[in-house]
Amino acid sequence: MEGSHLRKDPVTQRWVVISPDRENVPRREVWTHPPDLPIGACPFCPGNEAQTGPEIYVEREPGSVRNGPGWWVRVVPDKHPILHIEGGLEKSAEGMYDGMNAIGAHEILIETPAHDQHWADLEVLQVERMLRACQQRSLDLRNDVRFRHVIWVKNYGAPTSLLHHPHSHIVASPFIPRAIEEELKGFGDHVRWKERCVLCDVVRQETAVGRRIVLKEGGIVVFAPYAPRFPYESWIVPIEHSHDFGATRAPLLRDLARAIQGTVLRIRRLLEDPPYSLILHSSPLGEFAREEYHWHFELVPRPPQVLGLEWGTGIYINPIPPEVAAERLRQVVQ
Amino acid sequence: MEGSHLRKDPVTQRWVVISPDRENVPRREVWTHPPDLPIGACPFCPGNEAQTGPEIYVEREPGSVRNGPGWWVRVVPDKHPILHIEGGLEKSAEGMYDGMNAIGAHEILIETPAHDQHWADLEVLQVERMLRACQQRSLDLRNDVRFRHVIWVKNYGAPTSLLHHPHSHIVASPFIPRAIEEELKGFGDHVRWKERCVLCDVVRQETAVGRRIVLKEGGIVVFAPYAPRFPYESWIVPIEHSHDFGATRAPLLRDLARAIQGTVLRIRRLLEDPPYSLILHSSPLGEFAREEYHWHFELVPRPPQVLGLEWGTGIYINPIPPEVAAERLRQVVQ
Repeated sequence: MEGSHLRKDPVTQRWVVISPDRENVPRREVWTHPPDLPIGACPFCPGNEAQTGPEIYVEREPGSVRNGPGWWVRVVPDKHPILHIEGGLEKSAEGMYDGMNAIGAHEILIETPAHDQHWADLEVLQVERMLRACQQRSLDLRNDVRFRHVIWVKNYGAPTSLLHHPHSHIVASPFIPRAIEEELKGFGDHVRWKERCVLCDVVRQETAVGRRIVLKEGGIVVFAPYAPRFPYESWIVPIEHSHDFGATRAPLLRDLARAIQGTVLRIRRLLEDPPYSLILHSSPLGEFAREEYHWHFELVPRPPQVLGLEWGTGIYINPIPPEVAAERLRQVVQ
Repeated sequence: MEGSHLRKDPVTQRWVVISPDRENVPRREVWTHPPDLPIGACPFCPGNEAQTGPEIYVEREPGSVRNGPGWWVRVVPDKHPILHIEGGLEKSAEGMYDGMNAIGAHEILIETPAHDQHWADLEVLQVERMLRACQQRSLDLRNDVRFRHVIWVKNYGAPTSLLHHPHSHIVASPFIPRAIEEELKGFGDHVRWKERCVLCDVVRQETAVGRRIVLKEGGIVVFAPYAPRFPYESWIVPIEHSHDFGATRAPLLRDLARAIQGTVLRIRRLLEDPPYSLILHSSPLGEFAREEYHWHFELVPRPPQVLGLEWGTGIYINPIPPEVAAERLRQVVQ
């Protein structure tokens, strides 16, 4: 069997990564906190830098040495990348089907040197550093014309995550992920009908009404969306329109760090440290960029509830109305 | 807080069921086989018919009494319905947002009187009876003009399922589920470009190539699709074009029963009795019916792998190429 490659479903036009080389990559089936490694065995801990690939981006103490300790955040290549950096796209056909090479970038953002630190306990400056790392990678990866999109995904307590040390994934892909494509259609339709950004409209209504607001930090607002798929789903959105997370300026990045950390803290307190996913939604890149898009982060605690009717049919059933979720999150004592 | 209702996300235009009355419905978080009830306590067992609502559809032994024992398959209302049968849709707005009442039907198909029976061990006649029950409910529910779609979902070993006794869900909804809508777009585009059904084209190519075929039973073919989201995902498709499962004639229903049972049996043997989902994909109803659609069933074993990058981004990573999956399924010794 050939290696990793991309295939497009002819009905839904959805691209799927077929990666036979991952069949034996260890995965855990149950969504719990990952077990801990013996001290000294964690490849993401300071002193073990040689166990990862060389750093692609780093913020470190002045005077410390490249690929050695003394860093605050560090981006390295993933050991089992879902997309590979080398080669051309080589679009191909099999009869009526379309395929291409699984070209892309898959990088790991090591978020802190501290093996045991929870995001909710990080200093704001540290969250800011990791957001800047993500931004800088987005700016760098877009120079590669093969890539149409960069996504950043943090899965805390996820089954796919075998490592306890705080880290997240940066993935540059030669296609636009389906979740972004669905939103692009919505942004496009709203602009055509109303000549306005739909998420700007949402932010205006949410701040006016207030019932679904979780918190505000300077230029960032966090709210439970009107039709959330999951209990306590929260959107973290810049109030001013911008399609490109890469263009975020330093003061807004600091507001964003505060807003994300504040939300994660409230979720941890209210729901007793649940697993969660935090995903950056930003515009596609280059010629596929769309200025009507409005970047934001989506935070979803406890995604296991996705198992049931939901994932296979696209019918989501959410027992917690967003007004209730927002009120409970607002009332968390910090 | 008001009761169950529907809300449309303004960006993606996806309808979500907000059902505050379900917050305390018991749910299990982990995808394992449900625990068993003490004998006599199962509401789906013969003799306990009074523990469910009155039967909506039944096939039973001649001479046996309505809502008593002697049935082979039985459809009853769900005790915790996600959509409610009473009332009007009452479309409403909250500022820019759209909502409506959570009107619909949510029925339980009790698939066999035998509490412990696995689908793979059922007689073909019994599988046929449950498919006929599903078909008859689809034909009846479409008389209600409030409903745009009927879906049938079987989750075996699912976390949402607290009952061990074989059963599945029939849901009629006032909106078209997102998974079907995505396909409708694909079917529509293909007809516009090629004036042919895309799934007819797929069936032609798959039967000609053969590599991804799992089995054939008369008018039904089972294959691993070219771009499967999940390992061992299998599509069960009528070879002759038809948009409406409700219109299936008796001989094809028997082929379908054989094909489904044969696939479930192979999956159980190969993957050691994994949880699985089986979902009927059929055209919307009434004025929303689309003749270019091609009904089929999608079977996905072990959906826990959906947790990870996949559910939040729409990027699916599948380590088992469909050619390998189909070959392994074909080679299962029966």
